Amino acid sequence: MKNALLIIDMQNDFVLPGAPLHVAGAAATIPVIKKLLELARSRNWERIHIIRQHRRDGSDTESWRVSLFTKGPGVCVPGTDGARIVEELTPTADEHIIAKCRFSAFFQTSLDLLLRRLGVQNVIITGTQYPNCVRGTAVDAMSLDYRTIVVTDACSAQTEEIALSNIRDMRNMGITCITAAELEPLLEQQNG
Amino acid sequence: MKNALLIIDMQNDFVLPGAPLHVAGAAATIPVIKKLLELARSRNWERIHIIRQHRRDGSDTESWRVSLFTKGPGVCVPGTDGARIVEELTPTADEHIIAKCRFSAFFQTSLDLLLRRLGVQNVIITGTQYPNCVRGTAVDAMSLDYRTIVVTDACSAQTEEIALSNIRDMRNMGITCITAAELEPLLEQQNG
Repeated sequence: MKNALLIIDMQNDFVLPGAPLHVAGAAATIPVIKKLLELARSRNWERIHIIRQHRRDGSDTESWRVSLFTKGPGVCVPGTDGARIVEELTPTADEHIIAKCRFSAFFQTSLDLLLRRLGVQNVIITGTQYPNCVRGTAVDAMSLDYRTIVVTDACSAQTEEIALSNIRDMRNMGITCITAAELEPLLEQQNG
Repeated sequence: MKNALLIIDMQNDFVLPGAPLHVAGAAATIPVIKKLLELARSRNWERIHIIRQHRRDGSDTESWRVSLFTKGPGVCVPGTDGARIVEELTPTADEHIIAKCRFSAFFQTSLDLLLRRLGVQNVIITGTQYPNCVRGTAVDAMSLDYRTIVVTDACSAQTEEIALSNIRDMRNMGITCITAAELEPLLEQQNG
């Protein structure tokens, strides 16, 4: 079974204190994700960094967010500090980057084609935030028949209540939600 | 502004007591949805009935649900009683039916093409159930730039807590969540 680690939206615009789309729990997950990224590198799992990316005029953002671009500098605009992945999780040259402009990393992107080409069966999801991009990506991965694992302490939300209600719903959909400590034993069990 | 009323998965296999995928709150929404369907007919809104549909061998269901088909008779298999839309909401000959095999009514279906061809801007969502097909459809509709309205008392879940946490998340995504009584005033305001 081939594994892919997905890291979703761990960009300054979501993670840094005071960022325009700051997610309260995101910074606290950096050490957990970093450890998983190092594990993935050491095991030669596929590593796919998912980033949000928008044109400066906001023409490719959700319509209810356009004012962030028309009345302000926008978010996740390439070339800005906010668009960059947080320093601790900087991709290496051999890691994949997929840009998206909606919640799910599969929404009108090449992620499904990439995972097929790489021969991935297990999609391991980390990043931010639970109700939107994490859940959207997890539901699409499950719907596309990937074995889908959400690493609960490597994902974040604005509140613990939001995190827990989304974990409950995802479990009810057949999506595996486990902690980082439980990941390796589970994968060994599946592959053994 | 052109409106489309979507009715999602109001089939016997989800709604009738004792059904294999029974959703606790679904039957109670029938009168509300029926009234909205009559309103939509009288106003000549587009009416689109979304149904789940699976092959008898389960080859087109979510992988974690295959045992419903291999160890039992399956769900939403065309020709069975369970697959039929509940009697009160039976489509008329001029209403659209879209079959799907995952949560979102947009997932690998022609719904987006149909809505474009019909010139629809407002997508009004009713049916079951909140965390899965209702939310999946609403998020995709919003992502595709439709003005997306979820009618809260015309949608259902297994528990009130699940309904409320999903309404909270959808509101945070820019999806309008209102009651059936609030729908007409809102549409008049938008169109006026």
